[in-house]
Amino acid sequence: MAAERRVSGTRPRIDAARLVADLETLARFGATERGGVARVAYSPADLEARDWLDAQLTGLGLEVRRDPVGTTIAVLAGTEPGLAPIAVGSHTDTVPEGGRYDGALGVVAALACARAIAAGGPSLRHPLAVVDFEAEEATMGGATLASRAMTGALDEAALARPAYDGAPAAEHLRRAGLDPAKVAAAALRRGAFAAFLELHIEQGATLEADGVPIAVVQGIVGIRRFEVAFTGSAAHAGTTPMQDRDDALVAAAPFVVAVRDIAIEQGLVGTVGTLRVHPGAPSVVPGRVVMDVELRSTDETRLDAAEEQLARRAAGMGGEAVRLSAKAPAPFAPPLLAMLEDVCRASGLEHRRMWSGAGHDAGVLTAITDAAMLFVPSRAGISHNAAEFTEPRDCVRGARALLDWIVAVDGAR
Amino acid sequence: MAAERRVSGTRPRIDAARLVADLETLARFGATERGGVARVAYSPADLEARDWLDAQLTGLGLEVRRDPVGTTIAVLAGTEPGLAPIAVGSHTDTVPEGGRYDGALGVVAALACARAIAAGGPSLRHPLAVVDFEAEEATMGGATLASRAMTGALDEAALARPAYDGAPAAEHLRRAGLDPAKVAAAALRRGAFAAFLELHIEQGATLEADGVPIAVVQGIVGIRRFEVAFTGSAAHAGTTPMQDRDDALVAAAPFVVAVRDIAIEQGLVGTVGTLRVHPGAPSVVPGRVVMDVELRSTDETRLDAAEEQLARRAAGMGGEAVRLSAKAPAPFAPPLLAMLEDVCRASGLEHRRMWSGAGHDAGVLTAITDAAMLFVPSRAGISHNAAEFTEPRDCVRGARALLDWIVAVDGAR
Repeated sequence: MAAERRVSGTRPRIDAARLVADLETLARFGATERGGVARVAYSPADLEARDWLDAQLTGLGLEVRRDPVGTTIAVLAGTEPGLAPIAVGSHTDTVPEGGRYDGALGVVAALACARAIAAGGPSLRHPLAVVDFEAEEATMGGATLASRAMTGALDEAALARPAYDGAPAAEHLRRAGLDPAKVAAAALRRGAFAAFLELHIEQGATLEADGVPIAVVQGIVGIRRFEVAFTGSAAHAGTTPMQDRDDALVAAAPFVVAVRDIAIEQGLVGTVGTLRVHPGAPSVVPGRVVMDVELRSTDETRLDAAEEQLARRAAGMGGEAVRLSAKAPAPFAPPLLAMLEDVCRASGLEHRRMWSGAGHDAGVLTAITDAAMLFVPSRAGISHNAAEFTEPRDCVRGARALLDWIVAVDGAR
Repeated sequence: MAAERRVSGTRPRIDAARLVADLETLARFGATERGGVARVAYSPADLEARDWLDAQLTGLGLEVRRDPVGTTIAVLAGTEPGLAPIAVGSHTDTVPEGGRYDGALGVVAALACARAIAAGGPSLRHPLAVVDFEAEEATMGGATLASRAMTGALDEAALARPAYDGAPAAEHLRRAGLDPAKVAAAALRRGAFAAFLELHIEQGATLEADGVPIAVVQGIVGIRRFEVAFTGSAAHAGTTPMQDRDDALVAAAPFVVAVRDIAIEQGLVGTVGTLRVHPGAPSVVPGRVVMDVELRSTDETRLDAAEEQLARRAAGMGGEAVRLSAKAPAPFAPPLLAMLEDVCRASGLEHRRMWSGAGHDAGVLTAITDAAMLFVPSRAGISHNAAEFTEPRDCVRGARALLDWIVAVDGAR
């Protein structure tokens, strides 16, 4: 580890070796035999990783606290009194069998930025807040639990939903020493942050395929989820003639194709990702079929039109569509995007604009602050998997762009 | 319990009260809280029920043995030396959550017939064999295990297949004190029985719906099972545009409808009873879909034609059909059917001919002897369920027809 020096006036710089070493260290918490990471929110591995992060941040002189759902918020003072912090971060929790980069890279990069700024002296006007959200992954009965709590969109009742292991999410908080009754106290007022900036891996293959190191993320697509059910009559496959059948799967199958057709017609993506047949035996005519249908688009109007068609087509085929959830498209703040583009241009980094098809805490945070993200390439687009990988060079490029972006935002606001 | 008397020359009669009481007694072995029966082959409940049956049969003067796979074969001597026994029976094993009538009624009715004949004196020329097959239900890696063993169609290797609980079937035999290496010794020569007659509940709703008490079963339909798989590429539902997808479920869905169409065109029944989507998450484009497809018909030519179409249509849609099993249609012996019809007419019992859409030991036994079945009504066609029910009146009618049938076969052969 290189010695840290405070050289006042020096432009802050990312310590590349330390960034890579920190990524390695963080990956040890919940490391799996296959080289992945199992660090589900509120698990011992998750809490140990957070303690490690706290120690790093405290060592740099940041004031560290945890909010009522367990999110780490660490603040480095700025030079100008009364300004809200520029927040930067991501999440260190993972899916049950996750990789080393999803979320982790954004947190380690934020730590690297704090280290650079702390080492370079009090060069920011704004305070810098490093944020490590809890339960970003959909393990606690829904994704982005802590950022929703931060925007006031989560109440205690939502914590009654079953977590990935069947136990209520509230039980996981309790085991981690948190009080589910205090979730409302996690809410921050609008303007509590001057901005929120998040670095994340793409979790898609487009940057790698085209050799572009940085994406300026314009926003998070809107996602609507539906449960579509077809009910027929279960019957013995040997003793029930074809004309007497009310086969739920025969009714449901054309709807799968209809979802594809609606998506293409409306210019969005539509997916039937699950389909469950009941009772589900080779010799029993299906009595009920239930599927999950998802629509994603950057455009609310298209989502509306597709939803209307989806409900109409389902009904026309004897099915019933129930909307489970709807997240509106979350466009990021255009001035932040422009600043990131300026930063990339100044560093000679090739970049492109893109929308994120996946949800992120930054999308949720748009409810209370200007937010934006930058993506770095994911090898083969693989994510939520031990094979998740981003080249160290790309990790460092991303962290440098993030640091320059913080400085740019600090100067502009 | 009525006292049993031997009144030589009296026409044997079913003891109706005893039949109903025996059904009740048998249902206590493996009784479940919901009123059903859990009496899987080789389980303690199954073995205890068989011990109870042995005691009843021994008490009536039958010579009782168990074959190498655990089937009970109990013989009552006839008057004419050198004749093969007329065999009658069914099975007392059940599915893991079964009912009180499937199999059990046929065994209790056979016991009632043996009681009637033993009480009426040595009035049959042929010996009477009461048979309680083991593992008729598909719990031991396939259905009709013991009747297949009896026809020489089962070898030790087949017992390596996993049973319903994942353990090899051979392990279940061993726990029941049987030696899987001796399975071949269960085979009987052709002609070992003069005939095999089986009473069973319909497990369909047609007799009840039309108020017909007896079905003369013409045979067991042929059954062919296939696994049909469609392989695409799993991908993130948010980041993969529609035109870049290779969605296995979108490819597989039209095939479900094709199976229905092929069945109607070919005049048989065709069912997709299961369909599994991999990896199976709302936000993941399906990478692989696997379904079970079943064709049933009384006509081998139709099965051939439907199978050919099924394979062709699957290939045309990018899928692959693999045949898992094929059971040829098993027509029963026409003279036995005619005798059962005579018996019904003589008793004034309304009856109809029908094919069995479900498999039974009698179908397997056609390989070594003339065999046939009679069905009695099942309430609402419900079977393999605690709600399985046949009116006591119908149970008694069935047992009486079975007894008269035995007497008729005894006179004719």
